[in-house]
Amino acid sequence: MKIQGRSIIGFNSAPQSDTSIKAIDPSTGSEIEPPFYNAETETVNQAAALASGTFQIYSKKSSQERAAFLNEIANQIEAIGEPLVTRAMQETGLPEGRIKGETGRTTGQLRLFASLIEDGSWSQARIDTALPDRAPLPRPDIRSMSRPLGPVVVFAASNFPLAFSTAGGDTTSALAAGCPVIVKAHSSHPGTAELIARAIQKAAEKTGMPDGVFSLLFGGGRTVGSALVAHPAIKAVGFTGSTAGGTALMEIAAKRAEPIPVYAEMGSVNPVVLLPEAVSQNVESIANGLHISATLGVGQFCTNPGVVCIKKDARGDALVNRFVEKMNNTAAQVMLNATIHRAYCDGITQLQENDKVATLVSGSGNDDDSPCLGAAAVFETSASSFLQDESLSHEIFGPGTTLVRWQNKEELLALLESFQGQLTGTIHASETDLGNYSEILAVLERKVGRIVYNSFPTGVEVCHSMVHGGPFPATSDGRSTSVGTHAISRFTRLIAYQDSPQSLLPDELKDGNPLGIVRLEN
Amino acid sequence: MKIQGRSIIGFNSAPQSDTSIKAIDPSTGSEIEPPFYNAETETVNQAAALASGTFQIYSKKSSQERAAFLNEIANQIEAIGEPLVTRAMQETGLPEGRIKGETGRTTGQLRLFASLIEDGSWSQARIDTALPDRAPLPRPDIRSMSRPLGPVVVFAASNFPLAFSTAGGDTTSALAAGCPVIVKAHSSHPGTAELIARAIQKAAEKTGMPDGVFSLLFGGGRTVGSALVAHPAIKAVGFTGSTAGGTALMEIAAKRAEPIPVYAEMGSVNPVVLLPEAVSQNVESIANGLHISATLGVGQFCTNPGVVCIKKDARGDALVNRFVEKMNNTAAQVMLNATIHRAYCDGITQLQENDKVATLVSGSGNDDDSPCLGAAAVFETSASSFLQDESLSHEIFGPGTTLVRWQNKEELLALLESFQGQLTGTIHASETDLGNYSEILAVLERKVGRIVYNSFPTGVEVCHSMVHGGPFPATSDGRSTSVGTHAISRFTRLIAYQDSPQSLLPDELKDGNPLGIVRLEN
Repeated sequence: MKIQGRSIIGFNSAPQSDTSIKAIDPSTGSEIEPPFYNAETETVNQAAALASGTFQIYSKKSSQERAAFLNEIANQIEAIGEPLVTRAMQETGLPEGRIKGETGRTTGQLRLFASLIEDGSWSQARIDTALPDRAPLPRPDIRSMSRPLGPVVVFAASNFPLAFSTAGGDTTSALAAGCPVIVKAHSSHPGTAELIARAIQKAAEKTGMPDGVFSLLFGGGRTVGSALVAHPAIKAVGFTGSTAGGTALMEIAAKRAEPIPVYAEMGSVNPVVLLPEAVSQNVESIANGLHISATLGVGQFCTNPGVVCIKKDARGDALVNRFVEKMNNTAAQVMLNATIHRAYCDGITQLQENDKVATLVSGSGNDDDSPCLGAAAVFETSASSFLQDESLSHEIFGPGTTLVRWQNKEELLALLESFQGQLTGTIHASETDLGNYSEILAVLERKVGRIVYNSFPTGVEVCHSMVHGGPFPATSDGRSTSVGTHAISRFTRLIAYQDSPQSLLPDELKDGNPLGIVRLEN
Repeated sequence: MKIQGRSIIGFNSAPQSDTSIKAIDPSTGSEIEPPFYNAETETVNQAAALASGTFQIYSKKSSQERAAFLNEIANQIEAIGEPLVTRAMQETGLPEGRIKGETGRTTGQLRLFASLIEDGSWSQARIDTALPDRAPLPRPDIRSMSRPLGPVVVFAASNFPLAFSTAGGDTTSALAAGCPVIVKAHSSHPGTAELIARAIQKAAEKTGMPDGVFSLLFGGGRTVGSALVAHPAIKAVGFTGSTAGGTALMEIAAKRAEPIPVYAEMGSVNPVVLLPEAVSQNVESIANGLHISATLGVGQFCTNPGVVCIKKDARGDALVNRFVEKMNNTAAQVMLNATIHRAYCDGITQLQENDKVATLVSGSGNDDDSPCLGAAAVFETSASSFLQDESLSHEIFGPGTTLVRWQNKEELLALLESFQGQLTGTIHASETDLGNYSEILAVLERKVGRIVYNSFPTGVEVCHSMVHGGPFPATSDGRSTSVGTHAISRFTRLIAYQDSPQSLLPDELKDGNPLGIVRLEN
């Protein structure tokens, strides 16, 4: 399949425009052919209008039909095979094993959501049947369920070119809910985006989905992206990326004549709390696990453990020494793109220059971006310095870890209280530790979306119970998750039908429960 | 119980302040004793700090304990008896039957939420147990459920002095979820608010709830209300009232360092679509039902049918004539307060003076506010005029109805497309009508939270399936409902626990399902 570099509008391609970009291989800094043409205003409006018209049709497709579409997308992605792996590796610098693993995660996710909607119980169907003889007033027949919101715009992430990108969790859950999707491709992997988009296009045609159920636009976030979020046809936004990018979209969405929900996952420092007895019992395994978690994917995960809170004592020192040894022995690896590479270099330079911070592993790599090498870095500071200098709590996206040394429980509690909203919070603790430090759990629960015990935050399982969310600024909406089947509810709203004729009700709400789903009936 | 006029901060009362207001009897325009002292900044901060500290304790109370609290609030409200009825009637101009009925609705709602949380299945408990042998990577044990958001501020509504006020749906669902509540009392019925708040205070003491689980503040929306929404301790807002009031709170909440959700129910015109065959078959019953729905509670309901779409034909004319007759014979009644009365008079004056609108029933009442009499009004306009003049789609809170006459299906569809988000949409249709006009259902479904067939929108059942919501500007968040048991989810967020020791899990997530609730287990 030849990559064409043109935006995809439903079953068609947009014309070439006057401006274009090329993908860049971060391992060499050189451009990759072909050019990708930026979508013009007319193309943006065309995609939005098409999605709006299609919504009426797509939202009425049965769950079985939508499930067949999702399953076919997974098949079509698998059918691309080697060209997808090659292109994705070239555009992201990620190794083959990771790209193949992530492809599996992506197709697995599509099939999980297909089975979710095939089952139908996700839709929160509730029925209160009429009570015509109730006094003083009869009760009407009322039935409600989750229905799709409308066309959704998805901003692809750079750090998961497949699982959080064109056919990633946001797209999959929106399509599953019954919403047409327009993806704003990430400029870091446009070729990968096009390959996946064509797979979705093929699957839509093959399973009889309406034209416009899916579009992919190339172009800048500040032009194409902002225009999409401001467009009246759009009813919700999914985003994974920087705090600056996410909050900019939140502002645009809030200022619309009709404000719409933005689900922005903006990352966090994912504090790890190491309690004393656990440390003394498991120096080697904690140092090892932390090292793997901190350097996995060159640290380019939203759940990367950026801040580790360790007691200032001999056992803590021993752990720090082992961790530093391992980080020192880690080879620098290619990061995703020049923007991320430069931000990482700037971030660690700032810490190196902060006189309240000790540099244990410098992490200094090459200054130019060819290649974009990221070297593991370790910094150490005291809890009191960390509490005084707010900049130390900022996320540095990449394989850098800041160790914060606390003296006593009061200092540890103050440290935890100082954190803003986080995706995860991790505790390593023995039973004795949990008894001695029981107060920290309630603080952590107020701050995070997922609490991890005696393990590490990276590796987000795609399952029914997963919560990949957390209070602002980890996400724009701490009530939601962008991973796992709960993610579908972001793109729905409840609708009630009062005294509706049976024939006009969605199957989920009909008498006799023809779909055999779990419902709440009274 | 003597009404004291002082804000209630947990188990205590705030001191008297320099400024105060008195309630006004809308049937006479005269003041009612005693004065109610406006909360000062210090009092606001005190209530917020207390709620914040209390959250840690209250959120850990078992569902059984919270249910006992809610049930006891219902008991304590019933125990007030006659003084509550007398005071509420005096402050609102509503008749005894309505106040007694609304008290029953309020206590019924408290007991419904008590049974909801006692059952426990509402909490969305999900469990994915560990798969240590899974290849290539083991699956950890992950469990998640809905947990309370934090302290909630509730703005009481004027039009339901009990069911949407101090112990109304917002307060009840937030307390049920595990969130402390601070109510900003409505200045239209401060005495009623205090009586109810003292009942909550007593119930909290009697059932061993922590100090600060509930507070009631007197004062202006622009001072006390804004300060509460901006306060960092507050994590969500419930509001029922005007669009101006609701959107002002949305703005404050969005501009916070940590933006928080605002659930503002701002009302709508609740379009009623009358299709031709249904009209010809049921002139008398439709005219009668519409008249009751339009004038119930002097039209002061969010679900009041403000705009009725009727075909321009002889059958439609016959219906209009019967409806006008009934509205003409309706005695003017006392409205809730001078602000609402003046807004209603201004609204109908604007329609009277609009040369595209025919005044069928003038609705003119007294110009001053002693008493605040609201007379039923009926206006008529064409679909094309309605489409040209956006002002005709504005809500006029009170017993005024605008009849919009359409010529054909295209015009009706254009009419429906022109509506902004609405709480409800009503259709009167025979089977033949539904066949002839099938396209309107999809349009309506995009616009409203509840579709009503062959009935009327007023009368919102408090039950599991109710959706009292709808796209902006009907509400600030069309994904939610402020009536029915779904309302509880507004004040929660999902939290996941990974590899947690059993003893640290909420009971809802423990092995063996000790609470016997409905869970999703994999």
